[in-house]
Amino acid sequence: MKTVILIGANGKMGQAALTGLGNHKVITAGRSADTYDYQVDITSEDSLRNLYESVGEFDAVVNTVGLCEYATFEEMTQEQWMTTVMSKMMGQINLVRIGQEYIADKGSFTLITGILNLKPIPYAVADATTSGAIDTFVQVVAHELPRGIRINSVNPTVLEEAWDVYGEMMPGFQPVPGALVGKAFERSVDGFISGQVLYVDA
Amino acid sequence: MKTVILIGANGKMGQAALTGLGNHKVITAGRSADTYDYQVDITSEDSLRNLYESVGEFDAVVNTVGLCEYATFEEMTQEQWMTTVMSKMMGQINLVRIGQEYIADKGSFTLITGILNLKPIPYAVADATTSGAIDTFVQVVAHELPRGIRINSVNPTVLEEAWDVYGEMMPGFQPVPGALVGKAFERSVDGFISGQVLYVDA
Repeated sequence: MKTVILIGANGKMGQAALTGLGNHKVITAGRSADTYDYQVDITSEDSLRNLYESVGEFDAVVNTVGLCEYATFEEMTQEQWMTTVMSKMMGQINLVRIGQEYIADKGSFTLITGILNLKPIPYAVADATTSGAIDTFVQVVAHELPRGIRINSVNPTVLEEAWDVYGEMMPGFQPVPGALVGKAFERSVDGFISGQVLYVDA
Repeated sequence: MKTVILIGANGKMGQAALTGLGNHKVITAGRSADTYDYQVDITSEDSLRNLYESVGEFDAVVNTVGLCEYATFEEMTQEQWMTTVMSKMMGQINLVRIGQEYIADKGSFTLITGILNLKPIPYAVADATTSGAIDTFVQVVAHELPRGIRINSVNPTVLEEAWDVYGEMMPGFQPVPGALVGKAFERSVDGFISGQVLYVDA
């Protein structure tokens, strides 16, 4: 049994990840201290460091959050770009950069991206661009992590559980069950793979 | 004959691009007003807007610059990450975002990335991550650009002309002549392709 920090456990993607973490001790973290074991804002280095120091020993970090702004490229402002970059991209990079100081030997980081970098749709250029950045990051940084620490990203299509929210903007996409995406998180946390993008698409 | 704004013409990559732009009227831009037709800092939205307004009519923008910081992942600071993100990634995105307002119908943008996102080496995680972001960006945003405007990225390996500087940190890499990379820029500017990553590797 591993101790896993799951960031964003109450969201649809967090619930999907949770289905794959049943064998482990899961510590939840997220925006609100009321609904999680620990409060964390991944856009803040101090908040990330505080999370890791508060938790103490842990074997894995699974992240399922990252704020993206959606707009046409023409209308997306610098501020909207930077909100997305500082959360989904730099937030996840910093989660690893700071977390590597604290995580156990042979620990693992699992980040979240999304299929829109391979299957573009309107309004999602910032989401797709930052997914491309993170999918590249995990493939590259895996060679550098010390002490047997691993890293992967899970890149899913839309969840069945979120289809009522996103379905209208994703015509022709086939949603997948959250439990199938949970398998990818499980494969990352419990396997020996590293530097991989785990696509879950239909 | 097209009017092409070439950013960073005096650099090694700019000189490579220039070899592919011989049929066109090339307007040079870069950091120093002394050595270029126009001064521009791609990290500044005002500077980019000023460049486009000063040039007036143009058919293509070819960018060959983007500042990257190099360090091990463990030692790379948030400041170094952000320098790279704001120049090579957001600088190039803003170059397109603002430039689309000014560029001629059927114009083109050609951005620069680099092979280290596919062939990782030590110290280059920020370079690789932002290359991954830009290669994804061009593939996605191509579907949105109006008025027949095209976009591609050129993703070269190290240049023969820069081997004395970079060779030591890139063991086992085969440099390519700048003139071969110039062909990729030419293919982007003079072709009809869009949303493509033009790899130049050996």
